[in-house]
Amino acid sequence: MPIYLDHAATTPMRPEAIAAYAEAMGVVGNPSSIHSQGQQAKRMLEEAREVVATTLGCDPIEVVFTSGGTEAVNLAIKGIFWARNGGGRPRPRILAPGGEHHATMDTLEWLAGAEGAQPEWLPLDRDGVVRLDAAAAAFAVEPARIALTTALWVNNEVGTIEPVGELAALASAAEVPVHLDAVAAYGHLPIDFAALTSQGVRALSVSAHKIGGPVGIGALVLSRAESVVPLVHGGGQQRQVRSGTQDVAAAVSFATAARLASRDLEAEGARVTALRDRLIRGVLSAVPEAVLSGLPAGDPGRVASNAHFTFPGAQGDSLLFLLDLAGISVSTGSACQAGIPEPSHVLIAMGRAETDARSALRVSLGRTTTDGDVDALIAALPSAFAQATRAGLAERATRLGR
Amino acid sequence: MPIYLDHAATTPMRPEAIAAYAEAMGVVGNPSSIHSQGQQAKRMLEEAREVVATTLGCDPIEVVFTSGGTEAVNLAIKGIFWARNGGGRPRPRILAPGGEHHATMDTLEWLAGAEGAQPEWLPLDRDGVVRLDAAAAAFAVEPARIALTTALWVNNEVGTIEPVGELAALASAAEVPVHLDAVAAYGHLPIDFAALTSQGVRALSVSAHKIGGPVGIGALVLSRAESVVPLVHGGGQQRQVRSGTQDVAAAVSFATAARLASRDLEAEGARVTALRDRLIRGVLSAVPEAVLSGLPAGDPGRVASNAHFTFPGAQGDSLLFLLDLAGISVSTGSACQAGIPEPSHVLIAMGRAETDARSALRVSLGRTTTDGDVDALIAALPSAFAQATRAGLAERATRLGR
Repeated sequence: MPIYLDHAATTPMRPEAIAAYAEAMGVVGNPSSIHSQGQQAKRMLEEAREVVATTLGCDPIEVVFTSGGTEAVNLAIKGIFWARNGGGRPRPRILAPGGEHHATMDTLEWLAGAEGAQPEWLPLDRDGVVRLDAAAAAFAVEPARIALTTALWVNNEVGTIEPVGELAALASAAEVPVHLDAVAAYGHLPIDFAALTSQGVRALSVSAHKIGGPVGIGALVLSRAESVVPLVHGGGQQRQVRSGTQDVAAAVSFATAARLASRDLEAEGARVTALRDRLIRGVLSAVPEAVLSGLPAGDPGRVASNAHFTFPGAQGDSLLFLLDLAGISVSTGSACQAGIPEPSHVLIAMGRAETDARSALRVSLGRTTTDGDVDALIAALPSAFAQATRAGLAERATRLGR
Repeated sequence: MPIYLDHAATTPMRPEAIAAYAEAMGVVGNPSSIHSQGQQAKRMLEEAREVVATTLGCDPIEVVFTSGGTEAVNLAIKGIFWARNGGGRPRPRILAPGGEHHATMDTLEWLAGAEGAQPEWLPLDRDGVVRLDAAAAAFAVEPARIALTTALWVNNEVGTIEPVGELAALASAAEVPVHLDAVAAYGHLPIDFAALTSQGVRALSVSAHKIGGPVGIGALVLSRAESVVPLVHGGGQQRQVRSGTQDVAAAVSFATAARLASRDLEAEGARVTALRDRLIRGVLSAVPEAVLSGLPAGDPGRVASNAHFTFPGAQGDSLLFLLDLAGISVSTGSACQAGIPEPSHVLIAMGRAETDARSALRVSLGRTTTDGDVDALIAALPSAFAQATRAGLAERATRLGR
């Protein structure tokens, strides 16, 4: 069994969440059906919604189940953009930090090309923190033309916790609704949607499979004060915001994982932070060329589960493959589609050079991570780096025709 | 345990599909990850896609997994509408039979109100069959301004199998792409997408939980020749058509159910048709006032699993509640949201009166339906009808102030 250090991509399901899913699949009934069997399914669904709401500090009615984080982010951004832009697009502007997840980037690009939106990217500092001075300047210009602001709470690549309260305060003063992509924050930071609402946050996206729940379900927490245009029209389920037969078994499993993740948040946070800090120190000592991205070990602005390095002279992909051969699963952190490696847009937004952005490795820890996993990575890295550096040099030589 | 005769709303999962889901949830890895664990997850996903493709007569690459039938229908209709309508909306028209599912109706209404679409509803005959003469007339007028045609293959309320080949031929002659909502056909009729493609069909929607698979997954079969604008943008999974972490466990479970449903299609079709015809005759004999909607027992144009009646003088909802008290789960077939009963728009489209459309009861059979279930319904109906009729009369008297 390989050593799994890619918990940010997806984390193993909790056994209790698997068991809850398997049991709930045996229950027959569509929660939209009026008969007793349908109503029994509906009770299970609404109990699950209540549990999830408790872990997010919101009312159950504010939890809109989606097929996952990506759909939730799309629903929030497109939904609020459309709701605040009738004919004539009076509010075309959308403010977002650089270095957002592709769910946001690609959504904004589409809205720009097809629906008349004008996205504006707020700069990041070299640790990946959004520049609040630049945000303040952007909000100061024609705020009535801004449809919404959207931001990652925790950057999914470099693990930087963003100053979302301060960003929301700026947006709120400009009367601009805020959506937070909390997919990488959920299960790692306490989330109190009610408190965020008073700071101006109107919507927040989470995903179940990042916290030990199943793939295929997430949620958009949507303030009752906010209206969105749906992405998916139909039977009118979930306050008409998200139609389609509701997935009771997935919701029950999600709730099971959410309850446990919430219970363990503090203890696991401390345990994983200690492991992660040892990992960072070990890697920087074993491969002195390695550079930590984002905030340093021990900094409370770095999410517990994340370590992210660049390895000058090596390709992240080569390192990934060599570690995979050594039985260790990590990630480059970049969106690698159809095998085409791309430099990390997050590192670019942080002002790093493209060669740097191609040498990235994200190591993400989780509930099943042990001391042994950390030791194995530290032991395997030096030889992988040496090989990857030679490969990198060889490739460059080939490209230069030498 | 109640007698379940609402298989069209959702049908019990096959035990093999539950077991496959439970086992696959234990596999760790995001199929978009490059490491071995991710690639193992990807192999499972692609094997599932191949099995599903086999049951639909299409290539695996044409299967786009969605969160269900409603999302698939939305993606097909909005996606083709947007893809064929750049600036200026040169093809605003969308042709669809009356009596479509809410996934289609509400999508077309939204496109009309927000995106400049011009839906045109093709009339149905009194059995629920789309009028091909009216369709031909609609296609004859400015076909270059039609974005697409969408149609139910099997009507989900009254069980009428639509002449989709003939409709597609008309559309094809007018060079208009066709989407079929095959949610109520899948598992009941053989589906050969390759053959349909040659008739002009470009997209087809199915759902797993209607065939013994899990809720939360469906598929849009999308011809390679057709492009759609995505509903959900992000990591670019599935040919860039549908982003978001792919749900391996749900796909594996879906494939398990699809394989078994496909294997059993003929035998189950014969068994369920016989049960259904006995049910129809039994109901019409036990309650002589009952009127069968759609095509008669024994007619090959009626899907095997469906029986649908109106009960003059009774409210469908009252009948549903009374049968529920008797331990039998059926449906009114109407979209009943938040407890507000509405008359069936399908029956209205078939030319029935509104009082008729409020007296409807859909009885839908499936894999677990037995002779005893049919007997129980026939036995319970006369007294339920008598009580519902009295309730209907009392209500009318109250409304008239008597």
